[in-house]
Amino acid sequence: MSTLCADFLAVRRGTEALTAGLTAEDCQLQSMPDASPVKWHLAHTSWFFEQFIAVPRGIAPVNPAYAALFNSYYVGAGPRHPRLRRGDLSRPALVEVMDYRRQVTQAVAGLLGDRQHAADTDLHALVTLGIAHEQQHQELIVTDMKHHFACQPLSPLHSPAPAQARGVAPILRYVPMAGGLVAIGHEGPDFAFDNEMPRHRVWLEPYALADRLVTETEYLAFMDDGGYAQPTLWLSDGWAAREAQGWAAPLHWQHDGDGWRVLTWQGWRRPRADVAVCHVSHYEADAYARWADARLPTAPEWEAASAQPGADEPARHGAWLEDGHRHPAPMAALPAGSGLRQMFGDCWQWTGSSYLPYPGYRVPAGTVGEYNGKFMSGQMVLKGGSAATPRGHARPSYRNFFPPGARWQFSGIRLARDGGTA
Amino acid sequence: MSTLCADFLAVRRGTEALTAGLTAEDCQLQSMPDASPVKWHLAHTSWFFEQFIAVPRGIAPVNPAYAALFNSYYVGAGPRHPRLRRGDLSRPALVEVMDYRRQVTQAVAGLLGDRQHAADTDLHALVTLGIAHEQQHQELIVTDMKHHFACQPLSPLHSPAPAQARGVAPILRYVPMAGGLVAIGHEGPDFAFDNEMPRHRVWLEPYALADRLVTETEYLAFMDDGGYAQPTLWLSDGWAAREAQGWAAPLHWQHDGDGWRVLTWQGWRRPRADVAVCHVSHYEADAYARWADARLPTAPEWEAASAQPGADEPARHGAWLEDGHRHPAPMAALPAGSGLRQMFGDCWQWTGSSYLPYPGYRVPAGTVGEYNGKFMSGQMVLKGGSAATPRGHARPSYRNFFPPGARWQFSGIRLARDGGTA
Amino acid sequence: MSTLCADFLAVRRGTEALTAGLTAEDCQLQSMPDASPVKWHLAHTSWFFEQFIAVPRGIAPVNPAYAALFNSYYVGAGPRHPRLRRGDLSRPALVEVMDYRRQVTQAVAGLLGDRQHAADTDLHALVTLGIAHEQQHQELIVTDMKHHFACQPLSPLHSPAPAQARGVAPILRYVPMAGGLVAIGHEGPDFAFDNEMPRHRVWLEPYALADRLVTETEYLAFMDDGGYAQPTLWLSDGWAAREAQGWAAPLHWQHDGDGWRVLTWQGWRRPRADVAVCHVSHYEADAYARWADARLPTAPEWEAASAQPGADEPARHGAWLEDGHRHPAPMAALPAGSGLRQMFGDCWQWTGSSYLPYPGYRVPAGTVGEYNGKFMSGQMVLKGGSAATPRGHARPSYRNFFPPGARWQFSGIRLARDGGTA
Amino acid sequence: MSTLCADFLAVRRGTEALTAGLTAEDCQLQSMPDASPVKWHLAHTSWFFEQFIAVPRGIAPVNPAYAALFNSYYVGAGPRHPRLRRGDLSRPALVEVMDYRRQVTQAVAGLLGDRQHAADTDLHALVTLGIAHEQQHQELIVTDMKHHFACQPLSPLHSPAPAQARGVAPILRYVPMAGGLVAIGHEGPDFAFDNEMPRHRVWLEPYALADRLVTETEYLAFMDDGGYAQPTLWLSDGWAAREAQGWAAPLHWQHDGDGWRVLTWQGWRRPRADVAVCHVSHYEADAYARWADARLPTAPEWEAASAQPGADEPARHGAWLEDGHRHPAPMAALPAGSGLRQMFGDCWQWTGSSYLPYPGYRVPAGTVGEYNGKFMSGQMVLKGGSAATPRGHARPSYRNFFPPGARWQFSGIRLARDGGTA
Repeated sequence: MSTLCADFLAVRRGTEALTAGLTAEDCQLQSMPDASPVKWHLAHTSWFFEQFIAVPRGIAPVNPAYAALFNSYYVGAGPRHPRLRRGDLSRPALVEVMDYRRQVTQAVAGLLGDRQHAADTDLHALVTLGIAHEQQHQELIVTDMKHHFACQPLSPLHSPAPAQARGVAPILRYVPMAGGLVAIGHEGPDFAFDNEMPRHRVWLEPYALADRLVTETEYLAFMDDGGYAQPTLWLSDGWAAREAQGWAAPLHWQHDGDGWRVLTWQGWRRPRADVAVCHVSHYEADAYARWADARLPTAPEWEAASAQPGADEPARHGAWLEDGHRHPAPMAALPAGSGLRQMFGDCWQWTGSSYLPYPGYRVPAGTVGEYNGKFMSGQMVLKGGSAATPRGHARPSYRNFFPPGARWQFSGIRLARDGGTA
Repeated sequence: MSTLCADFLAVRRGTEALTAGLTAEDCQLQSMPDASPVKWHLAHTSWFFEQFIAVPRGIAPVNPAYAALFNSYYVGAGPRHPRLRRGDLSRPALVEVMDYRRQVTQAVAGLLGDRQHAADTDLHALVTLGIAHEQQHQELIVTDMKHHFACQPLSPLHSPAPAQARGVAPILRYVPMAGGLVAIGHEGPDFAFDNEMPRHRVWLEPYALADRLVTETEYLAFMDDGGYAQPTLWLSDGWAAREAQGWAAPLHWQHDGDGWRVLTWQGWRRPRADVAVCHVSHYEADAYARWADARLPTAPEWEAASAQPGADEPARHGAWLEDGHRHPAPMAALPAGSGLRQMFGDCWQWTGSSYLPYPGYRVPAGTVGEYNGKFMSGQMVLKGGSAATPRGHARPSYRNFFPPGARWQFSGIRLARDGGTA
Repeated sequence: MSTLCADFLAVRRGTEALTAGLTAEDCQLQSMPDASPVKWHLAHTSWFFEQFIAVPRGIAPVNPAYAALFNSYYVGAGPRHPRLRRGDLSRPALVEVMDYRRQVTQAVAGLLGDRQHAADTDLHALVTLGIAHEQQHQELIVTDMKHHFACQPLSPLHSPAPAQARGVAPILRYVPMAGGLVAIGHEGPDFAFDNEMPRHRVWLEPYALADRLVTETEYLAFMDDGGYAQPTLWLSDGWAAREAQGWAAPLHWQHDGDGWRVLTWQGWRRPRADVAVCHVSHYEADAYARWADARLPTAPEWEAASAQPGADEPARHGAWLEDGHRHPAPMAALPAGSGLRQMFGDCWQWTGSSYLPYPGYRVPAGTVGEYNGKFMSGQMVLKGGSAATPRGHARPSYRNFFPPGARWQFSGIRLARDGGTA
Repeated sequence: MSTLCADFLAVRRGTEALTAGLTAEDCQLQSMPDASPVKWHLAHTSWFFEQFIAVPRGIAPVNPAYAALFNSYYVGAGPRHPRLRRGDLSRPALVEVMDYRRQVTQAVAGLLGDRQHAADTDLHALVTLGIAHEQQHQELIVTDMKHHFACQPLSPLHSPAPAQARGVAPILRYVPMAGGLVAIGHEGPDFAFDNEMPRHRVWLEPYALADRLVTETEYLAFMDDGGYAQPTLWLSDGWAAREAQGWAAPLHWQHDGDGWRVLTWQGWRRPRADVAVCHVSHYEADAYARWADARLPTAPEWEAASAQPGADEPARHGAWLEDGHRHPAPMAALPAGSGLRQMFGDCWQWTGSSYLPYPGYRVPAGTVGEYNGKFMSGQMVLKGGSAATPRGHARPSYRNFFPPGARWQFSGIRLARDGGTA
């Protein structure tokens, strides 16, 4: 079996493993417009392979009605069931969707194993894209399900967490970066999304990056200092979002009389000094940075730093989806001079950069070209990866993006400062 | 076993029978704010017996968390999970709710069979109320599920209906009524809701009632005559609702290019000349009546007529929930002088009367007093019963009520005119 | 000059007198959707005479563009400028509208003085209707302007009120009424609106009416007793309105640290024990009544009582628009047995009756038939008249109507009880 | 008199001259949330001088109540009247606001003429800022008033325009730019806003800019080609805005049966081949560019090009506020090789760049620091200037910014392409 086929089967199995322990009803939930039912993710990732790979190669669709039900936003692929109403689809049932998955997996594996398609480079490129696409949905399954479970008192998420030491935060140091004319973006034979290309040059003034992420107790200090009550710390849109939605803490935090507590996949626990804060919006990250007399890094600053020799090694210790905890890991104390840590894993890191096309970017031809380009408006870039991200997504050029008010992802804060000195 | 206990067990079984053929996911759906998940109805009707009957008699609640989850609107019974978010509760699962039902059924049956409670008149009154309450939810299960299924293309509702003759409408005749000083409302030992009491006198001027309901093809004639395009036919609020929601036909009607078709529990079919139109709002019923040079009857007019000797017999031929079709039945041709037909069953009949307290009405003491009184504002009275109503609810004094824009119930139109002549 | 013509000229002058002291900018304001700019009222009342009287009698419209701009809701009279956007019309200017008024006044006066039209009974009926219509808008000018002025800190309304004694409330007594078969509604040659007709019989059970209105300090006791915090006192819709709009007191009340104060046309002052509370919604009136172990009277109860010999005399002491204070007057102490007071003037009195057509009611032919009938949905009847109502509107059969959540009118509370004993 | 004082007096007079011909009622209008009443602009620009210059130098405020009424968004300067409700302020009247202006002008002129303040560099910096601020509001007075007038049928804007030749569009040529390491942003003694600084380096790949703006008839070709009906031409957010707001043409365009017409300050006329299209959103500009097989320039690309020797001269022929027409001017035909035209004046040019802080940007200390920084989120940069902009605002480094859906400004389209060849 080809590596590609093995990777394909692995990602399919991986998605299904994520739903172990969920009931048919759990997989039906849509607790907010931005989050989709798990069943829908299971079906949509299959639809992607069927629509773009199997059907064009002559394989009949499993059920023609699925084309509209499980199309997300590909206008070129025909009509779509409204996003807001995905939770209305009790039919097909979860068992039918699992059967749909099975048939699509088999069909695509068949194509990959078929000599007739050995030279079909399109096939290989599309399966590679489909694998990456399904990995993105693996992360969404985790973040959406956390939201669905957070909304209901009897969900497993609300069990009390095991007692834990509160930890100690490593000293935060700023690592200086020289800047200058640097190259960012993807180049080469490995897979990357279209929005990571073309590789191009960017001029950076000298800057410095914090060597680790902001922790829960550091963020709590911001809260205790009135961070949510001082409009001058906030962007104007951020302040308006805070007021409209009554934000007083990150998402999935709650005050229980004794103090704040944090909802993790292991239950509720107190904020820790050695765990990165997550579930903050860009607006909150930006306000925190201003309060801390710092700023968010730009995406090119982040990428240039992460690609430096040596920057990467310690970073690989961050938590990933495969680690199973689904929450940023406690930070280990490290000696000064260890360089940048937590660049990958643990938390997506909000940058100060808008999600816009790179110079020379062209939307790929065909319907699959709707993948990334049309969302290049109104969103901010996040870098790194999180405890809900498949490890295979770790690379400097990866560009994640969400609107500045989004909080249900595992999104946290790395600080930066002007000038290349600590 | 007492009759009451037998009735109790019958209604419990009846509710469960309604969900046969539904999946756990079907029972999870909340396709609009006014409609609840079937699972929630199953639980809430149990909660009612538990909260008001079992717990006060010393029986421990099955799960204390259910108190808030399955309380509908009884402020006196503690906090409530928000109505709009009932569809977010994947836990407890359907199987757990069915087990909850079983335990509550057993507990209440135990109380009813327990000699110690033989003289507990409150117990008997509350079980009687609980039975009637559960019957109301049986109807809601049907109407809500029809909405949930109408919203998704793969639901069983969308199967093509068996071919049918289009039928012939019996001639519509107006039956004159003398009016005068009449008594309406409930009195006597049989069960009735508090809102049907006290029985009291009302003065009626002479009037006439149509001897049958308005049919689908009659309503289609109104549509074809521009009924939805002439503001002068409509109440001002009705016209605004029509514009805001884009009404051009009753709910669950659709134009398929060849003409209008009607969604029934047996699938889509063309409008019939011998079937009562349903799923119209009060606004549409009122506009239709004005177009037909008639008006809607007031609730006292309707009730006085229905209670007349002879009025009732033919009426009993209307369809009820127990008949299983869940749609108004074809009308049989009847000789002139047959009197009023379809007074009960087939369709709830919008009246021109607001839902207000009767003279001398007092809200019952205790939390159960929140049952009806606090909704006496902004709603219109409907009389009769429908093809989704348990037959036991057929009585002249019954007052159903919905906001004038509600369309997802089986609500139809009976015409009336001033003056006691045909 | 005919009496009609004199009345006509008087009402036209009266409207203009109301705007003395207002600037062009004041007359431009639309501070909420329900309230119109004063300039619009000035123009619309002229449009009514022009559209329904002058133009059909061959007089050219002053400006054809006004037809759409100043039509309120008469669909039959052509398109209308959207109600919500009346405040966008800076053109025509106030001076042009005053000139429009002058030209229309002159034209209608000319018709009334013209022998050729002496037998034109339609003309006389329509002018009579137009006078009543303009009187209604006189009241709206006062209530809307109070809202417009309440919204801005520098308006004359916010000047401090002269110091005042707080007064003493007369003892509240319930006056028993026998009920029985009574006739209500208008009959006879005097003017009344179509919605007051036809006169018809209604059966009333014995009841009792409070002999005066609820006062400001009585209402304050309800507030102090947690009236706005106890959902069981409220209709369900009322509680939802209270929550959505944050009601904690009547409209135009404010807490200033030392206690509540009331905004009157003479400025802010403390609540008084001898002044009727006003600016409450139907929901608040209903909740207050429940708290006071009473209920609101039905409209027929109120009307039957007000038409009794003797009921009327003391009532005539209520304040009217012509009195100039634009607020309910202090109540004088009166000996027991004085009968019902404040039936007319001071405050509109919310009833427990929905605004629905009377038996035998027919919408008048022609566009003018849109006057009342199409609003017979979703509104409650108010009786009596207020300190902003022209005195000529005082009559038992008058039916004012507003949605149950409306608070910007001078609307107050009279209590009633079942049973014909005090 | 100092030059600064002369400039100050000139800008104050200039603002007042813009309101010539407007009535008190015109100046009261607020026809949409984004647009303010002209009276408010007149007052707010005075408040700025009073709050930040006069009061800190010991001059008593004209009316302490104005502090809250005319503060726009300076949280540090105390509470603010809600932006959405500026149209509710009939008091102070226009004449009072003009008197307020007079007093503030006099006070500031007094300070500037007072020797005691000769060395007050803060004073001079703030007056310079206040002048630039008031110039920005001059533009808003024009764009807001155009909106206020467009909403009402009797406004002077709706008079028919004088007949005009339709013009001929000069050939559109792309001018190649080498890119490389360029410097953008402001530096030096002349005034610039904080958001134009610091000057810094940016790396640009080779690109080409269209030598003129897109014209009305070119845009009409996009419309005729189904530009508003092809979702693949649009950003996802843009398509959603188009649907939600029903866009089918630029703002202030209307179809009259014979074809589209364009609303100008001289009235309605047909689209012209030699006039730049304006009143398009960023979304529309972006969709047009994609349709035209081009893209929008980035802000650095635009600025680098505009600062080239030679680029500027022809550009200065664009229309400015002082020219009085308040609409882009007809383009003259120019020989090939004339370089970039219309870089300044006529229309603001949407760029593909988000409005974000420059490297090293620091928010200025004090309340005046709220001027620009807190809006650096969710907005796009526009460059150049428009027919409603005071000519003094023409400079390469100027950064105008609006949300991508804004259309009521004079915003148009310049195209760009990758690669430094035509």
